[in-house]
Amino acid sequence: MERIGVGLVGYGTVGSGVGKLLRESADEIRLATGKDVYLRRVCELPGFSHPDLDAALVTSSFDDIVGDPDIQIVVELIGGIHPALEFQTAALRAGKNVVTANKQLISQHGHELFDAAESTHTHLRFEASAVGAVPVIKVLRESLAAAQVQRIFGIVNGTTNYVLSAMTDTGAAYDDVLKKAQELGFAEADPSEDVGGKDAAAKMAILASIAFHSRVTLADVHHEGITAVAAADIAHARSFGYVIKLLGVAKLIDGRMNVRVYPAFLPMDHPLAGVKGAYNAVFLEGSSFDKIMLFGPGAGSVPTASAVVGDIISIVTTAPGGFVRTCTCYKDLPFYPDERVVASFYLRLQVEDKPSVLGKITAIFGEEGVSIRSVVQTGGGDSAELVMLLHSAPEAAVMRALARVGELADVQGSPSFLRVEGEDGV
Amino acid sequence: MERIGVGLVGYGTVGSGVGKLLRESADEIRLATGKDVYLRRVCELPGFSHPDLDAALVTSSFDDIVGDPDIQIVVELIGGIHPALEFQTAALRAGKNVVTANKQLISQHGHELFDAAESTHTHLRFEASAVGAVPVIKVLRESLAAAQVQRIFGIVNGTTNYVLSAMTDTGAAYDDVLKKAQELGFAEADPSEDVGGKDAAAKMAILASIAFHSRVTLADVHHEGITAVAAADIAHARSFGYVIKLLGVAKLIDGRMNVRVYPAFLPMDHPLAGVKGAYNAVFLEGSSFDKIMLFGPGAGSVPTASAVVGDIISIVTTAPGGFVRTCTCYKDLPFYPDERVVASFYLRLQVEDKPSVLGKITAIFGEEGVSIRSVVQTGGGDSAELVMLLHSAPEAAVMRALARVGELADVQGSPSFLRVEGEDGV
Repeated sequence: MERIGVGLVGYGTVGSGVGKLLRESADEIRLATGKDVYLRRVCELPGFSHPDLDAALVTSSFDDIVGDPDIQIVVELIGGIHPALEFQTAALRAGKNVVTANKQLISQHGHELFDAAESTHTHLRFEASAVGAVPVIKVLRESLAAAQVQRIFGIVNGTTNYVLSAMTDTGAAYDDVLKKAQELGFAEADPSEDVGGKDAAAKMAILASIAFHSRVTLADVHHEGITAVAAADIAHARSFGYVIKLLGVAKLIDGRMNVRVYPAFLPMDHPLAGVKGAYNAVFLEGSSFDKIMLFGPGAGSVPTASAVVGDIISIVTTAPGGFVRTCTCYKDLPFYPDERVVASFYLRLQVEDKPSVLGKITAIFGEEGVSIRSVVQTGGGDSAELVMLLHSAPEAAVMRALARVGELADVQGSPSFLRVEGEDGV
Repeated sequence: MERIGVGLVGYGTVGSGVGKLLRESADEIRLATGKDVYLRRVCELPGFSHPDLDAALVTSSFDDIVGDPDIQIVVELIGGIHPALEFQTAALRAGKNVVTANKQLISQHGHELFDAAESTHTHLRFEASAVGAVPVIKVLRESLAAAQVQRIFGIVNGTTNYVLSAMTDTGAAYDDVLKKAQELGFAEADPSEDVGGKDAAAKMAILASIAFHSRVTLADVHHEGITAVAAADIAHARSFGYVIKLLGVAKLIDGRMNVRVYPAFLPMDHPLAGVKGAYNAVFLEGSSFDKIMLFGPGAGSVPTASAVVGDIISIVTTAPGGFVRTCTCYKDLPFYPDERVVASFYLRLQVEDKPSVLGKITAIFGEEGVSIRSVVQTGGGDSAELVMLLHSAPEAAVMRALARVGELADVQGSPSFLRVEGEDGV
């Protein structure tokens, strides 16, 4: 039976999970692939040891991995841009297949890596970089290889989903919930990449690249985070029949791509509304398959290790020539400008409690061609809260109206806004 | 470039959809697979013609398919047991790969077909037989090949989900909703296989076979349908915070398999509760990947054609030796008896409105070791309705108690019961 050596770069929680799964599921992998997949070597820092690991397998030199003719698959799990980029490039150029969970690297340097893979007809797999254990990339690349994907739409960050779910369940404020999430380990000490939307944007760049066969990098994905979502917004959402979720949205409009991340209202009975805590879920839509949703753990070392092993199996079982070109950007579609996207919005404003204010505001929206679906005014005394839902309109028109409304003397502070998604049902 | 000929048996709505997708997505398939996949021949009834189809490609003899050396993949879309079984067996024995959407055949004769495939090292693929366009089988066989799946749990029949969703939304009775579903094309003229649970049972047999690497046939899957679900049950479910769904449940208990289909209470905030209309959704659970849910259209000719083309691509891209054994039943796990399964139940009884009735009933449950979670008694005059939720108990104990309760003189008719699932959250 053919033997396939795996070289692991990084033996932390995910790496040791991969080692364990390769060892404990060796029979299943042999039956599935017809090959004997084994851990050949581990690259770690000098002096590294691990109770699971034969010390003879450990090297501190990446050259021992890339130069080993018995290693066909290199798994990079050190994260970060450097030296991960150099390691992956060297491995691919040496004719080795690469598996990684490194979303920042793939979303920023995927193009160079795909080119390196194509030049040596090797595979670069990164299922664990997008939605953890959930095989969204495999479904996009393989099951839907003949389909035209029109839209990807989902919850791709567990930390923000945990925070928004807890705000929804408890009514607590963002800062309090985030602090608790940090204590419980659901948010990092520096949560800025998660709560600011950058982590979700990297994942959406990866998914959009695969789905649209075009280059989408992190820099192409405009992202808004959840730091401005107030308990009042959560409460208003509920009263209108919505929940607030941080969504990644990648869609084709007139043959052009628009890829973004923002918090949005989602109808309570939408399947994504039931995705709670740190779970992730992604909808894929296209005319030939209608819509498919995949749901599961977006992170965690055990599910991530499972996704890495899934990629290893996928490489071992792929026939020569299969699924190599699906990472390349042969379509090179242009982008569709955000401001021309048609969206519907929720707005919240603090206004002086005078009868004339509402008239001034509705007049501005009318002049900008944005029609209003509903208005609720509460409070009194000096200040009232005005909550509005708008009908669909080009975002530029809504933003122009919002800027003009914000300049009114009767309006206090800046208006808050969130998009409304998922109204087309599922 | 290598050319891969496809022979289609049956050119109805799904078959013509497959033909169209192969034609229109030829470039995408070429880029994904590195091979030229084309429609080589169609087997149909004598005199058949179709506007999309070159008449020279049509034959009425299956021998022209199985004897054609340029055909590597045979797609069987005629349905039913005979002659589909003979066609598939002949194709596999002749060294051709087979793709089918035929769930009754796979769930009843899968074992023989898997053996035929293994004897010639060919592939038998049947993604479209389980959950339409949703690639549950691919994820189980490939992404989770190294994982131990513990439970599969989901909504795998669109007709019953449509009917139950409509009953929930409108409060209407089963018969009225079914009649309307038939008028709208969501239920067949003879809906018995759907509403009786047999269709779902066939799909669960297929999924359990793959997940547990053991033989599970349609005959092994005890199934209860939705014909006895009353509007009153739907209303009570709602008042307790549940919806009613027809669930397929396949699980390992102490290393043994239990595979069943039954209508059940599901918490309103469970992700499966949001699966509406004719959509399907399946949860996969295992310790190495936590839980993954896949959602999408369970039927429909276009999504089914998409799943068939996904299978064709999967065969073309699989390396020799890969994923052949994953269909065979090398584990041969035994079954776990239904009556020993621990479950919690909802009950509805009509009783005479006498103070002593409740005492008699609770005494019986106490004697059988089943504890009661809540009781609601409504109505008055001659007859009152008693609704109970029970704590978890072995099903045999609950059934013994129910039989004894049904014999009480104060109880009118047979008690209705439904299991309660999804309480362990997601």
